[in-house]
Amino acid sequence: MNIEMIRAAALRGQGHVRRTPLLNSPFLDEIAGRHVYVKAECLQHTGSFKFRGAWSALSALPTEALARGVIAYSSGNHAQGVAQAARMHGSSATIVMPENAPKVKIDNTRALGAQVVLYDRVREDRHAIGAELAQERGLTLVKPYDEPQVIAGQGTCGLEIAEQAAELGITEAGVLVCCGGGGLTSGIALALEADAPGFKVRPAEPEDFDDAARSLASGERMRNAALSGSICDAIVTPEPGELTFPIMKRLCGPGFAVSETEVLRAMRLAFERLRIVVEPGGVVALAAALFHGDALNADSVIATVSGGNVDQAVFEQALRVGADA
Amino acid sequence: MNIEMIRAAALRGQGHVRRTPLLNSPFLDEIAGRHVYVKAECLQHTGSFKFRGAWSALSALPTEALARGVIAYSSGNHAQGVAQAARMHGSSATIVMPENAPKVKIDNTRALGAQVVLYDRVREDRHAIGAELAQERGLTLVKPYDEPQVIAGQGTCGLEIAEQAAELGITEAGVLVCCGGGGLTSGIALALEADAPGFKVRPAEPEDFDDAARSLASGERMRNAALSGSICDAIVTPEPGELTFPIMKRLCGPGFAVSETEVLRAMRLAFERLRIVVEPGGVVALAAALFHGDALNADSVIATVSGGNVDQAVFEQALRVGADA
Repeated sequence: MNIEMIRAAALRGQGHVRRTPLLNSPFLDEIAGRHVYVKAECLQHTGSFKFRGAWSALSALPTEALARGVIAYSSGNHAQGVAQAARMHGSSATIVMPENAPKVKIDNTRALGAQVVLYDRVREDRHAIGAELAQERGLTLVKPYDEPQVIAGQGTCGLEIAEQAAELGITEAGVLVCCGGGGLTSGIALALEADAPGFKVRPAEPEDFDDAARSLASGERMRNAALSGSICDAIVTPEPGELTFPIMKRLCGPGFAVSETEVLRAMRLAFERLRIVVEPGGVVALAAALFHGDALNADSVIATVSGGNVDQAVFEQALRVGADA
Repeated sequence: MNIEMIRAAALRGQGHVRRTPLLNSPFLDEIAGRHVYVKAECLQHTGSFKFRGAWSALSALPTEALARGVIAYSSGNHAQGVAQAARMHGSSATIVMPENAPKVKIDNTRALGAQVVLYDRVREDRHAIGAELAQERGLTLVKPYDEPQVIAGQGTCGLEIAEQAAELGITEAGVLVCCGGGGLTSGIALALEADAPGFKVRPAEPEDFDDAARSLASGERMRNAALSGSICDAIVTPEPGELTFPIMKRLCGPGFAVSETEVLRAMRLAFERLRIVVEPGGVVALAAALFHGDALNADSVIATVSGGNVDQAVFEQALRVGADA
C-alpha cells in the first residue's frame, strides 16, 4: 500500500466517482466550540464511501475476471457499492449479506442487479461463505477492507479532503473517520500523510464496538465482545483488518467511542443544519466531533459522514430522540 | 443584465459560495424514464441558493453602505442568505419576514445575527415596509429577485450546472428550476444561454401558484389569486419580477405546475435516493422532472433543488405521505 496506488485509483475513478462536498454550519461550530467540516460521503454514488473502493477494485480487474463476475460480503454499503460498480463495468455481482441487515440495503442491492445470498451474522462466518461461492463459480472476491485496491479507493476520499481543506486555508486539523474494518480510516490516513501532513486521523466508533480504539491503545488487534446489538450496523466488524491495522497503528491518533444518544443527536443535527441524510454508523465521526471535541486540541475538525442508507423508522427515531436529547 | 455580471459574481464568490454537487440515482432515472440530475442547492450555505444572490449583492456594495447595514424582506431563505452574507462581510442585517413563515427560518435568521421584523403576509405589503425601514435607517435594500446583482449571483448556479453537465458529457437537457419571483430561473437561463446553449430552462411551481407558467403562456405578467395556502412557502410570490420576467420570456420554455402530493413524494424520494433534505418549495422542479417528464422531449433533465429549510413536522409528513402515495 502506498500513495501512488491511491493516486492511480483517483485517476481510474475520474468521471465515475463523485467528488463529495465539504460542508459546514455556524450552528455546528457553536455546539462543538471549534470549526467543524463534514466530508459528506452519504452523497457518494449508492449513498456511501464504499463505492470508491468497489470502483477502484473492479476497475483494476482484467477483462476475463469482470466477465466471470465478482462476489462480496457486506452488511449493505459495500454490497451496494460493488453491485453498482459491477453494473457500470458490465459485470455481475453476487453479494453475501446478513439476514438482519437494514431492509433498505438488501432491497437496494437487489435492485442494482446483484444476486443476494443471506446468512446469519452471529452463527455463520461470512468469510467462509464468500470464499466457497467464489471458488465454486470462478468469481473474484472483493473484500470490504482488507484488500489493497479497496483501501486505495477509500483513500481517494482523503485526497479530496486535503484539496478541499487547502482551498479553505486549513493547515492543521483533527480528521475523524467512522471506523469499521479500517479501510476508509487507513486509506484517508495514507492520503493525508502525503498531502496534508498537518492533519491527524483518528477513528470513531460506537461504544461497546470500539475495537479500533482498543487496538490502537494496546498496540495489538483486539476483538469486539459482540457482533450485533448496535444501531451502527454499517461499522460493526469483529476486529481491525490485517492490512488496515498496521497503517492505522503507524498513522492514527487515539480513537473515539460515542453513545447511541450522541449518534441520534448527530443524525438530527445533520438533518437540520447540513440538510443531509445520514445513517447511524455513518455519523459516529460527526458525533465525536460535536460532543468529544475537547479531546482534540485543534481549532478545526473534519468529520467524515460515511453513509446515508438508513431505514425510515430509524431516521424518524433520530428526529424524535435527537430533538429531545 | 448580462453574462459578464454573472461571471463577475462568480469571481467575487470564489472561496465563499459553495459549489454544490450534481447528484443522480438509477432509481430516480427509472421513475422518470430518463436521466435525472439534481443540482443540490439545499447544500449551499444557509440551506438554499439565496446565499448566492445575497453574497453577490453585498460583495458589490461600497464599504460605507456595508457599514450602515442592509435590509431585506423574505419568507425565510433570502433572509438567511442576507443575514449570513452580512455577517461574513462584517455588516448588519434587518430582515422583514411574514409572521407565518416556518419557525425554523425565523429562528435561524435571528441566530445568524439579524434583526427580524415580522409582518402579516396577507394584509401588509412587504415592499412598503422594507422601503420605509430602509429610508429611516439609511439601510441598503437587498431585494429578493428584482435586483441585477442578485440575479447575477443566482446565475452562478447556472455556470456550475453548465460545467458539471459538460463533465458528464451532457449536451442537451431540460433544466427545471423552482420558480418564485424568477431570480434563480432568469439567472440560470442567462448563464446557460452563454455556456450551454443546448439546454432549455423551464420554471416549476405549485398548482394554483403558477404565476410564472401562466405569464409565460400569455406573454404578460400574471398574478396569483392567493398569496398563502401552499406548503411551498419559499416560492409563493405575487407575480414574476419586472426584471426577471423579460429574461424568462426570452429564454424559458413553458412552465410546470405540480400537486402537493407530488411535492411530498419528491421530498421522500430525495431523502431515500439522494440522501438530501429538501423543503416543499425547493423540490417542485424535481417533482416535475420525476412525474411530468414526458412533456420534456429530452433524454436528460436537470432539476434544481433550491432549498432545504424545512420544519421537522412537514418533513415527517413527507416521509409518511410520500411512502403511501
